[in-house]
Amino acid sequence: MTDANVHFQPLGRKTSPEQGKTLLELARDSGVAIESICGSAGKCGKCKVVIRSGAANLTPLNRSEVEILGDKSVHAGTRLACQAKIVSEGDVVVEVPEESRRGHHRLLAAGEERATKLRPAMTKAVIELPPATLADVRADDDRFLDVLRKGARASSMMSPGAHRTLPGALRDGSWLVTATLFRGKEVVRVDPGDTTGELYGVAVDIGTTQVVAYLIDLASGDVLATESMPNPQIPFGEDVMSRITFTTKTPDGNERLQKVILDGLNSLISKLSSSSGVPQENILEAMVVGNTAMHHIFFGIPAKHLASAPYAPAVRTSLVYDAGQMGVDIYPFGKVSSLPNVAGFVGADAIADLVSSGLYRDRQIGMMIDIGTNTEIIAGNKDRLVSCSCASG
Amino acid sequence: MTDANVHFQPLGRKTSPEQGKTLLELARDSGVAIESICGSAGKCGKCKVVIRSGAANLTPLNRSEVEILGDKSVHAGTRLACQAKIVSEGDVVVEVPEESRRGHHRLLAAGEERATKLRPAMTKAVIELPPATLADVRADDDRFLDVLRKGARASSMMSPGAHRTLPGALRDGSWLVTATLFRGKEVVRVDPGDTTGELYGVAVDIGTTQVVAYLIDLASGDVLATESMPNPQIPFGEDVMSRITFTTKTPDGNERLQKVILDGLNSLISKLSSSSGVPQENILEAMVVGNTAMHHIFFGIPAKHLASAPYAPAVRTSLVYDAGQMGVDIYPFGKVSSLPNVAGFVGADAIADLVSSGLYRDRQIGMMIDIGTNTEIIAGNKDRLVSCSCASG
Repeated sequence: MTDANVHFQPLGRKTSPEQGKTLLELARDSGVAIESICGSAGKCGKCKVVIRSGAANLTPLNRSEVEILGDKSVHAGTRLACQAKIVSEGDVVVEVPEESRRGHHRLLAAGEERATKLRPAMTKAVIELPPATLADVRADDDRFLDVLRKGARASSMMSPGAHRTLPGALRDGSWLVTATLFRGKEVVRVDPGDTTGELYGVAVDIGTTQVVAYLIDLASGDVLATESMPNPQIPFGEDVMSRITFTTKTPDGNERLQKVILDGLNSLISKLSSSSGVPQENILEAMVVGNTAMHHIFFGIPAKHLASAPYAPAVRTSLVYDAGQMGVDIYPFGKVSSLPNVAGFVGADAIADLVSSGLYRDRQIGMMIDIGTNTEIIAGNKDRLVSCSCASG
Repeated sequence: MTDANVHFQPLGRKTSPEQGKTLLELARDSGVAIESICGSAGKCGKCKVVIRSGAANLTPLNRSEVEILGDKSVHAGTRLACQAKIVSEGDVVVEVPEESRRGHHRLLAAGEERATKLRPAMTKAVIELPPATLADVRADDDRFLDVLRKGARASSMMSPGAHRTLPGALRDGSWLVTATLFRGKEVVRVDPGDTTGELYGVAVDIGTTQVVAYLIDLASGDVLATESMPNPQIPFGEDVMSRITFTTKTPDGNERLQKVILDGLNSLISKLSSSSGVPQENILEAMVVGNTAMHHIFFGIPAKHLASAPYAPAVRTSLVYDAGQMGVDIYPFGKVSSLPNVAGFVGADAIADLVSSGLYRDRQIGMMIDIGTNTEIIAGNKDRLVSCSCASG
């Protein structure tokens, strides 16, 4: 280790010159967002940078660069960040021109809303139990489930979260507690007293370009807060295909893309909580939609097979994970779910579009267009729907 | 922060003198095991230590110490580690006499074995699927579940582990894979090819004093390796009651005791894996037994209510957690389970005793005694069994 640095200007970020890494990889490692569409193939020419000093510490210009950059540009010290690799330890100063930088996008994250009757997966029930006495020494879980099951929830089961909160809640609530149930039968949490007035969830749309999260009061249906951010995966590839390419070319590519989107979502959830005053611990579920690639990567499922024929998705059915297991910072024994996917390039976001537009129950034939970096079009009515998608950003 | 230290002699451990902490707490923090039975109440006199220098940096002798230690002992510089607190920053040299140290115990961790027919919760099934083609672009999960469900596993569902491994396994195994199923219906993992010969689990007995773990070949029933260690919770209290007292007196006491036993179990699992050559990633389940307090603490369930009338346990029923969610270092989407508890002070270990002794199906009346730091006695036959327990270590 020397004290040498790769400086990215005018952003002022620096990192150590790791041998064998490209300037694009080093930029990503240090949080500098450089455009890249072709998945580091040296073809799109979007990642142009100018070497201000230390050019001798980099691999020589290769054929792709010569072809794409042209003489004048090469003369000015321009390189493709995805092609120039570190070969020796020494300072390198890299200027990232404005046109190579990923800026902020202006996207529509609000619109007209239709009145909707919510049927949240999480529900609450107030339960009163006979206290434990020396004449009735049943275990807390038996005592609790006996009452719950008499309330027609015959097959109720308990999650780790329920077991951890149950004994304290029973005694703190003087044997009157509120059970939170997922899909009416899995108890995920028990709180002392009556907390039926508090029921919160987040709805998340992971767009290729923009991520939007809404904090919803699941009792009233009100949107309590909205937050959005550019998709933090953009520095790894601008469109869906280049991100999938990144997962195939980097050994832990899928994990890295998953980590940045999880971190991004957690920062949105933290903001939703601050602005609304609802503690993150009280957010019980997150419903996530996105196109198939965004969906797979978010849930830690390999996305690479989406890019080769016959383009079958790994998962069509709706997923349900424990939030703690996923690493989503809401109540750890709450749930993170997705809507189902349709096909390789028509994802859970298209299902969300359909549900909210109501197209699936219309008699008349209609068409729904979701214009984004990837655009989906669905046409049809209650009898039959046809969908397709195409990169369009 | 200064460079001052609290030295524990003759063990050679040192730590910083944190104001307000007792010598017993500092000893625990630095891994020095000092006897303590009364839960730091200054009553049992087990935690005697001798201050070799730096006595002025400690609180003065209190009434408990004067009563328990006697003039001669006080004159020799003896203190109760649970009572003497740091009041100023400066070196303190503490001698921990042999009789105050928790030594290693000699316990029986092997014995006669009865022939047993194993019915492991994890089973494997080889499945061959029609390959994905442009004429059959079903999602991997639909394709997989269609075949699995035809094999009479009508209600099969998939865990996150299955979704993550499925697409790679299908293609690496040329559409012939092995599914691992929990309780015959939850798919937790999919491997390429036929891996039915490999099926491993660990059986864990968390005794108050000793922890024993066995690596079992679930196909043959063979014990492949055995490892044991003193229960790493011992420095926090020698018997069950003093450990429960620790959880009530320390704000994060339950979590701390859970962490040390989890860390201990993980070190045993790592040794089992090294000595047998079975990768930890291929251990699919862990079955854990222990008395009710050990059980509750291990699973992160508050144990404090076990110590007050009517001594109801929080949980009687058998628990099943995802290994990754629990922090047990086996296959993360494998399962960590417990046998059920019987009552407040008759735990899952007693059920294990019963199952392995066969007492529960005998016609003749018999008695089973599990002598440990806590001893359980069960008497009866197939018609009725009566159990009791008592501290006896």
